[in-house]
Amino acid sequence: MSTPLAVIGQRLPKIDAWSKVTGTARYADDLPLAGALCGRLLRSPHAHARILGIDTTAAASLPGVAAVITGRDLPIPYGILPISQDEHGLAPDKARFVGDPVAAVAASDDATAERALALIRVDYEPLPAYLTVEGTLGDVAEPIHALRRPGNIHKAVALAFGDVSAGLAAADLVQSDHFFYAGNTHAALELHAVVAVSDPAGHLTLWSSTQTPHYVQRALARALDLPASRIRVVAPALGGGFGGKTETLPHEVAAAKLALITGRPVKIRLTREEVFYSHRGRHPMHIALTTGVKRDGTITAMHLSTVLDGGAYASYGVASMYYSGALQTVTYRVPAYRFDGARVYTNKPPCGPKRGHGTPQPRFALEVQLDKIAETLAMDPAELRLRNLVNEHSVTVNHLRITSCGLRGCIERVVEASGFSNKHRRLPAGRGVGLACSSYLCGAGLPIYWNGLPHSTVHVHADRTGTVIVQCGATDIGQGSDSMLAYVTAEVLGLDPADVRLVTADTALAAVDLGSYSSRVTFMAGNAAMQAAERLRDLVLGAVAATTGLDHAHLALRGGRVVRTDHAGDVMPWAEAVAVTEARGTPASASGTYAPPPLAGPYKGAGVGPSPAYSYSACVVEVDVDDETGQVRPAEVWLAHDGGRALNPTLFEGQIEGGVYMGLGEALMEEQRFRGALHTGPSLLDYKTPMSVDMPVIHPIIVERIDPEGPFGAKEVGQGPLLPVPPALANAVYDAVGVRIDEVPITPDKVLRALRQRARGGAPRFGPKGHPPITYPVVVSVDPPAGAPGT
Amino acid sequence: MSTPLAVIGQRLPKIDAWSKVTGTARYADDLPLAGALCGRLLRSPHAHARILGIDTTAAASLPGVAAVITGRDLPIPYGILPISQDEHGLAPDKARFVGDPVAAVAASDDATAERALALIRVDYEPLPAYLTVEGTLGDVAEPIHALRRPGNIHKAVALAFGDVSAGLAAADLVQSDHFFYAGNTHAALELHAVVAVSDPAGHLTLWSSTQTPHYVQRALARALDLPASRIRVVAPALGGGFGGKTETLPHEVAAAKLALITGRPVKIRLTREEVFYSHRGRHPMHIALTTGVKRDGTITAMHLSTVLDGGAYASYGVASMYYSGALQTVTYRVPAYRFDGARVYTNKPPCGPKRGHGTPQPRFALEVQLDKIAETLAMDPAELRLRNLVNEHSVTVNHLRITSCGLRGCIERVVEASGFSNKHRRLPAGRGVGLACSSYLCGAGLPIYWNGLPHSTVHVHADRTGTVIVQCGATDIGQGSDSMLAYVTAEVLGLDPADVRLVTADTALAAVDLGSYSSRVTFMAGNAAMQAAERLRDLVLGAVAATTGLDHAHLALRGGRVVRTDHAGDVMPWAEAVAVTEARGTPASASGTYAPPPLAGPYKGAGVGPSPAYSYSACVVEVDVDDETGQVRPAEVWLAHDGGRALNPTLFEGQIEGGVYMGLGEALMEEQRFRGALHTGPSLLDYKTPMSVDMPVIHPIIVERIDPEGPFGAKEVGQGPLLPVPPALANAVYDAVGVRIDEVPITPDKVLRALRQRARGGAPRFGPKGHPPITYPVVVSVDPPAGAPGT
Repeated sequence: MSTPLAVIGQRLPKIDAWSKVTGTARYADDLPLAGALCGRLLRSPHAHARILGIDTTAAASLPGVAAVITGRDLPIPYGILPISQDEHGLAPDKARFVGDPVAAVAASDDATAERALALIRVDYEPLPAYLTVEGTLGDVAEPIHALRRPGNIHKAVALAFGDVSAGLAAADLVQSDHFFYAGNTHAALELHAVVAVSDPAGHLTLWSSTQTPHYVQRALARALDLPASRIRVVAPALGGGFGGKTETLPHEVAAAKLALITGRPVKIRLTREEVFYSHRGRHPMHIALTTGVKRDGTITAMHLSTVLDGGAYASYGVASMYYSGALQTVTYRVPAYRFDGARVYTNKPPCGPKRGHGTPQPRFALEVQLDKIAETLAMDPAELRLRNLVNEHSVTVNHLRITSCGLRGCIERVVEASGFSNKHRRLPAGRGVGLACSSYLCGAGLPIYWNGLPHSTVHVHADRTGTVIVQCGATDIGQGSDSMLAYVTAEVLGLDPADVRLVTADTALAAVDLGSYSSRVTFMAGNAAMQAAERLRDLVLGAVAATTGLDHAHLALRGGRVVRTDHAGDVMPWAEAVAVTEARGTPASASGTYAPPPLAGPYKGAGVGPSPAYSYSACVVEVDVDDETGQVRPAEVWLAHDGGRALNPTLFEGQIEGGVYMGLGEALMEEQRFRGALHTGPSLLDYKTPMSVDMPVIHPIIVERIDPEGPFGAKEVGQGPLLPVPPALANAVYDAVGVRIDEVPITPDKVLRALRQRARGGAPRFGPKGHPPITYPVVVSVDPPAGAPGT
Repeated sequence: MSTPLAVIGQRLPKIDAWSKVTGTARYADDLPLAGALCGRLLRSPHAHARILGIDTTAAASLPGVAAVITGRDLPIPYGILPISQDEHGLAPDKARFVGDPVAAVAASDDATAERALALIRVDYEPLPAYLTVEGTLGDVAEPIHALRRPGNIHKAVALAFGDVSAGLAAADLVQSDHFFYAGNTHAALELHAVVAVSDPAGHLTLWSSTQTPHYVQRALARALDLPASRIRVVAPALGGGFGGKTETLPHEVAAAKLALITGRPVKIRLTREEVFYSHRGRHPMHIALTTGVKRDGTITAMHLSTVLDGGAYASYGVASMYYSGALQTVTYRVPAYRFDGARVYTNKPPCGPKRGHGTPQPRFALEVQLDKIAETLAMDPAELRLRNLVNEHSVTVNHLRITSCGLRGCIERVVEASGFSNKHRRLPAGRGVGLACSSYLCGAGLPIYWNGLPHSTVHVHADRTGTVIVQCGATDIGQGSDSMLAYVTAEVLGLDPADVRLVTADTALAAVDLGSYSSRVTFMAGNAAMQAAERLRDLVLGAVAATTGLDHAHLALRGGRVVRTDHAGDVMPWAEAVAVTEARGTPASASGTYAPPPLAGPYKGAGVGPSPAYSYSACVVEVDVDDETGQVRPAEVWLAHDGGRALNPTLFEGQIEGGVYMGLGEALMEEQRFRGALHTGPSLLDYKTPMSVDMPVIHPIIVERIDPEGPFGAKEVGQGPLLPVPPALANAVYDAVGVRIDEVPITPDKVLRALRQRARGGAPRFGPKGHPPITYPVVVSVDPPAGAPGT
């Protein structure tokens, strides 16, 4: 249909905006529950220690204490992949990081729970703690996990696509660098909270601040040995997730167990300190990158090695590791590509997915390295990137299918808007500009569970009152996915989004949806909603056609009414059209599903990386650098993003701004710092993250490259815009003061050290000198697919 | 399928039993709402008065008062039928009964709201009050409603089916009597409460203790002039309804308006006193009944006249009036039948539907009259009734289609269990037994609104976790309809009822369902659920057959698994079968609907009476009557009920017991009594209703006459068992002490008066001497359908 869009593309408020700004939105911690017990977790003070015994007698007999549990009560391990099922609700045998929960209590109030925790006696045998990547490798005395892997390596792979040696040999310039990207955490405003309720009829319900209700349901079924159908998980309003609420966490399992034992509601709210230790955020990553280019800038081959400091447990770490190697080829044509990746365990809080999951770190490396190459080749950095742009509707050397790509437009728009070409290498000393690009997923092509089944299923119902219900398991974590579902449905049915009732994020009210991660909701749940709405539209218009004798092909839904498209003409209101449908014995009900086409290449680990579509971003950052203090102040940021159709330009721009904000935080200040095994500042006072006063002017630029498979051509914008910010900033710092900071965060001390080093005649650089001494497995060679660059 | 039933017929707990007994069920009054305003209604102290003006200035300026509204703010009348749209949220022109709401306030707390009410100045002009049926008829000076009807008559009809004069002329005995049945009220334990929330995006949500969320949605859309699709009505857990929560009440409209005006949540909870005045309960009814019988007891004709004292507003009164004349023919063969019915307005609280809606009163008359006829004919009362039993699969003279009828079994079982034949007329003085029978609807054949559309629509969804969701708009008011939906769905899908998630009583989560009244839910929503579940079963088994290559015809769902029926064999668990279905691209989702077959006869008013099926009851009551005090003490009650298949015998028996309880209350003590226009005792202390210590031993007897159209053959049991109790008790009183009490309640003073009258040589009777002097309209003659008795 060439009908102009009525809802899609409009600058509408989020459908939950009023509830958020007026304070009526209910978060998990707001749920009022008469008679609820307060749950608290006892956490290990040791980084690594054997638990010889736990005496809960005194705690259990304290008046007001309803239950005390330990790892013995939760003997079944759970986790993501079989290889990663290394976690228990409470550690049964060993504590593996400071903060690892070893016991839990439920008591009448917080103070009693606190006192009960103090009465629990844990008999620990301290073990050697492995706190650095270098220290955890090799012949360790006491592996953190007694699994069938050498030492403390969680997962390591080496993959080669095409002839990398030949590619490097054919290059005119081979650039090799080492980079380090510090770990940082989500710092979502909302703390994790959960309320668990069990009833004697055998139902367990959790209201939890989670991005993935269906995954939590699945993990609880395993850890508690209950049928999944008896477990209901609901995500109330969420105050941010950013990946930190993607996996089932010990407090959720413990609250559930305490509710089952006591038969009373149990609420656990983590403190901010506990959230810093629970973590699951950005992996610290060591990166070695070698890229070969021709004199004209054409990339001939690339070799990337990453080592991820995983912390004490698996989390989604295998995926994080694979992701670190997957997406370089989606941005630029790379004819031959090798990736070595390893994730190691250390006795620190577990790392996991954070916005951009595994990809900001190698993106930082690649985009800084390209800046160096451009300088060596005396090319404009934008020109170097345009020369290597991935082709639309192509396949990469590592078997990733590219559909739409608006990266050329992003680069052109951002260069033009920022005046990059006139500023680069031409600004006064202390001021500089940097450019970087990136790409990101629109959902993972392979699910973690339930392979072969839809990733999203949406039910849409209407009735004669005009009410439209959309049931979808996805979770609005603040990104606006509920609004997206309302917009898509309303557009298809010719309604106002306010006419659409959303029922989401509840395993007992919606079919399985994989959840809100990997930037998958707009593309996947959006497509499922669109299909369901289109089926409902066809059903209703078909009934109207059959009843009125009008030609179905000339009927449409617009402005809350059935209209004729052949002659201008109004047929009947929507509610009446639904009644006509019902009168024909047909419930006005339809379902839609989305599963991506088969995308994975013919190699192990090929499930991480392929996506039905990729978003693209280009970013220019302009900075002021003070060469006396080393202080870097971002002055202005231009970020152009191809997220396909901007379903709501205001939300689209909001995500760009949020991505820039978080990207600048990672680039300049954010880091999970430890002194030994102790977090140096597990509070929002000590953990530095940008405030609004720290923010430069941001120019979000929407580049709409309509994707053939996205709902109304949409892709993603929730994660992608973060990625180019840190390298663009690093490149701008170099442009400003001539020093390369090959690691983030780019703190003043590092800038100063590089400046002083240069002043002393040393290399104008701060960054790692080498790569952790890891032995990667045997390289697995994979033939590039037909049509890949270079084939 | 001849498979034995696994769930249906089992004595299972209600699915919400635990939440009720442990206190976790949330009623409307329990809903915690931060910042909610307290709403209160100002009620008229006059029975009939013109409102000359209302000064709200002082009230509105009281600190803490957020809004004050009057009838001016709610100018649109609403009500059931067009003829009955005589009610406003707040009375705009006149107050029509003591308690009629004329203004409403919303304030920060109850005390402030109370003080604000006291500050509202209403300028009333008192008008003549019409408080009795006799007084309200004729040439009234100030009609209560200025409608196009003579005087204060709300609705009057006269209908004749077949030749009544000829039938009476052919009788050997013509018995004529006058009866009076006092008005009484529901006295549900839960008081009415509502919480209304509006948001600036234009949505209005009501959580209200209502039996009919979709009707409330519809009424609010009209009264507030809002699109129905923007209004969500949810019924939380209900603590009884019995018809008193079937219609939209002023406090619901006022709360909604106050929420829209203030933008804040508004809660109104009626006091017990207000509930007595809000009422909508049993109509006081004057009944004149003439029945002709042959010497052998065969009924030849019947003429019934009823006059209903409707109180001040219409409510469902037109239906109450029609119902009073509809169902006599469903119990016994009546070859010629005349019905004159009238409902009049009086300046008292409006009457409406209460358990049995319009039928216990004429049932009392008929069954007492049959007892008199049996005595005159020297027949056993049971024998007289068996002689006149309606035929199964027949059509009555007034065009009602009979399907299954287990009344013979009910009479035989109850007579046998009670030893009625050996006791009747043979017990010592002061002790007696009485018998009565009855029948009741399984939902109305014609809807009040939405003619031609399904009365119930149910959506059933499953997903790979094994979760099954049933969405249905019906409301569990304590009768167990949610459990019924779970049983039916679980039986069809071979699951445990605990595996079924119910989503009910919410207009934004389920398609239109007419609600919980007329004993319609089991039959109608149950059939819709069964159809939806069967479609889902066929979908899933079809997918399993296609995937495994097994023959669909030999697959079944049992015990949570797909099994083979050809060889004993287990194929896969339910959750896996759903996954198999999803893997084939088919969402595991289905809908079912129920609309009764066309049933209405060819006359106006024919919509009230026809039902897809009728339940049957027979009751024997044994009493002790103290001839010195007139005290009647029921000693034992046997009640046999044909409700089709007993889906859960325990709940079935519970409904019998509840019906007997309420029937005994109406028979012995319950009455809405007024002194002038003032209720004499609007509290549960003064309004007498039986306590558990007042209850006799009850013997519930289940008679399962499987109905061909009911879900698993079920009919109804929620209302029917009340009906025969009052006449059986009256007949037992006669058997005990030889006096006829031709009205209820049968209070000691009436018994004593009749005993004294007999002692003075007068008639051994207490009851009305005549019928209100109403002029019925011209009699409309309706030809009986072919196959009706006597044709």
